[in-house]
Amino acid sequence: MRSTSRTEAVPASTPAASLVFTTVLSHGPLTRTEIARRTTLSSAAVTKAVRPLMEAGYLVEGVDEEARSSLGRPANPVRVDGGRALFIGVKVTGDEIIAVLTDLCCRIRVARHLPLTDREPGAVLAAIAGLVQELLTEADGFGVEVRGLGLAVSGDVDRTAGVVRYSPFLDWRDVPLADLAGTVTGLPVTVDNDVRALTVAEQWFGAGVGLSDFALVTVGAGIGCGLVVHGRVVSGAHGVAGEIGHLSIDPLGPPCHCGNTGCVEAIAGDSAIVRRVREVTGLPVADSGQALELAHQGDPGAKEAYARAGEAIGRAIGAVVNVLGPQRVIISGEGLAAYDLFAEQIRDAFAASAFGTAAQCDVMTRPLPFEEWARGAAATAIQSFIGTDTY
Amino acid sequence: MRSTSRTEAVPASTPAASLVFTTVLSHGPLTRTEIARRTTLSSAAVTKAVRPLMEAGYLVEGVDEEARSSLGRPANPVRVDGGRALFIGVKVTGDEIIAVLTDLCCRIRVARHLPLTDREPGAVLAAIAGLVQELLTEADGFGVEVRGLGLAVSGDVDRTAGVVRYSPFLDWRDVPLADLAGTVTGLPVTVDNDVRALTVAEQWFGAGVGLSDFALVTVGAGIGCGLVVHGRVVSGAHGVAGEIGHLSIDPLGPPCHCGNTGCVEAIAGDSAIVRRVREVTGLPVADSGQALELAHQGDPGAKEAYARAGEAIGRAIGAVVNVLGPQRVIISGEGLAAYDLFAEQIRDAFAASAFGTAAQCDVMTRPLPFEEWARGAAATAIQSFIGTDTY
Repeated sequence: MRSTSRTEAVPASTPAASLVFTTVLSHGPLTRTEIARRTTLSSAAVTKAVRPLMEAGYLVEGVDEEARSSLGRPANPVRVDGGRALFIGVKVTGDEIIAVLTDLCCRIRVARHLPLTDREPGAVLAAIAGLVQELLTEADGFGVEVRGLGLAVSGDVDRTAGVVRYSPFLDWRDVPLADLAGTVTGLPVTVDNDVRALTVAEQWFGAGVGLSDFALVTVGAGIGCGLVVHGRVVSGAHGVAGEIGHLSIDPLGPPCHCGNTGCVEAIAGDSAIVRRVREVTGLPVADSGQALELAHQGDPGAKEAYARAGEAIGRAIGAVVNVLGPQRVIISGEGLAAYDLFAEQIRDAFAASAFGTAAQCDVMTRPLPFEEWARGAAATAIQSFIGTDTY
Repeated sequence: MRSTSRTEAVPASTPAASLVFTTVLSHGPLTRTEIARRTTLSSAAVTKAVRPLMEAGYLVEGVDEEARSSLGRPANPVRVDGGRALFIGVKVTGDEIIAVLTDLCCRIRVARHLPLTDREPGAVLAAIAGLVQELLTEADGFGVEVRGLGLAVSGDVDRTAGVVRYSPFLDWRDVPLADLAGTVTGLPVTVDNDVRALTVAEQWFGAGVGLSDFALVTVGAGIGCGLVVHGRVVSGAHGVAGEIGHLSIDPLGPPCHCGNTGCVEAIAGDSAIVRRVREVTGLPVADSGQALELAHQGDPGAKEAYARAGEAIGRAIGAVVNVLGPQRVIISGEGLAAYDLFAEQIRDAFAASAFGTAAQCDVMTRPLPFEEWARGAAATAIQSFIGTDTY
């Protein structure tokens, strides 16, 4: 991935500098020796990479008395100066916009939610502009400039071009979101797929820290997957990757909005579960909240729909593990609210699908509220700012 | 991946040096400027990496008059000195052992085939030892030392430990092949999964040159897949990756030897096709040669079995493309002999499964004889020798 044309000149333009920055961000404060060890860069390369980042004030030498005394000599650890710059991250769901103001360490300073009533690009853009304006006003109180805006949208997103090519839940096609949002906010804008953005946050600060290979599987309205392979988020040569929701696992399964049959999402996505609960129970179930309630009340038909979804999710996880052999699979997303209803089926279907030692993969769940997804969007803005998306 | 304990001290022990070596190997002769551009290393880093490789004689300055005159000044391009060292690569199939002697540029100098009558590890090891001895004798004629032996075996192979954990076609479990082969041959041994080894050869010299992300799908006795993501072969945290043969695509499909149901390999692997042809035609078809002949003669039952296999392969390719979004998928393997019987089904099933722009992936076929697989095994030995498996 490359910075969009709207991104300002980046302070760290070499791969080594980007690597050093994100390593210090995730693990800092770190001594230069420790940075060299973790990045496998030479000491000279680390020194060279650290210098411009320190001159720009993004890295500072942290006086860490504890490290100093335990090492018996001044350790001069380096850390990111979170207060040096601010960023805004926005996650757009089908029902809501969630925006956060973060510092350079991607720590959330302020969060805002806004219900989304109209999914037309123009209306969504106006809502984003309003939220961004609120957060820019908040930012004034910190006396630090907002240096970038990250927008996270579900679907097929071309980060390089800044275009949402196809978002089923918003019903968008070919929306040049980065240009539009840049025009209305005046900020450098990074647009990315929401699951990929959340994966960046997990890699930097979450259950993916220190792992070179992991998958983040999100269950809810859609079934998504963010992948980190060889230490980097996979974005796909044509912008599509991690689409486990569109693995077809049953030739006789239900039709999917993508045009294929038996896709995981057509069995385990929220609306697929609601449809199935309606079919099996004959009840006029309106949404996934009601479907979930019915299942939690013990309705066998509703429970069966969730069990079926769990089996599909487990098979999808098995597919990812067989293809990539990650160290860990993190299951998250708003669908975790139903986890008690399909945990067993996920586990069993994964165990049945995993080939050989792939079954040793650590599969865990981790609830991540939408603020965390917005934080992921802010992380992509920090990536663009610091130049790590070119690494 | 790390070198096995049997590997000698490597001449290029830094990631930069490894990267420089493989870049020159694939694209050389290259000037240092060109190396820097292709590797995104700094000129200083390239100079530093090239020096020890030149001192050891693995890289040499090629006097390339053409480059000199076209550039108008001495260009001093660097190339790998193929004659500086020899390697042996061995591919073990269920029926045959194929061994090649290559130079440091992985050019095949001599090739040997030996039918395999006994698949017991001891018998296979004795056959390998005999072939290696023949090739060592050939190597004497070149006056250059053989510096490593690469062995490629299908199944779940732990390269780091040098152990074949599970090979269905050989019916092996937990065979410490690197140690055994090292003892009988006296050479440093690298053992890897055969498809991964072939993927290294494709990345260095084949249809993967210059691509950061591609998949090599092999069809035949098994259905395998080698993956290059972010410029590196994917080996899986637990040694398993690319197991698209064990993606379950039909809950009502045939049982697979792995214990699961409806796996791609249980539909599209050679023995699955033979079984299906027998079922549908009622004829006593002995092997895939006879099944293929029957289908080529126009038998509708046999043709249907291949069509079904093609659909499964196409869906598996769709899964890889949806999950990873590679630039290219290369279809190879001895199963290409039946390609005319299932090309259309592969294409149609891929088109139906590919999500959005993932369908833009370039899917191509490429016949690669078993010598090429053995060459891949030699490439893994060169990797271990030069230290590129640690990059």
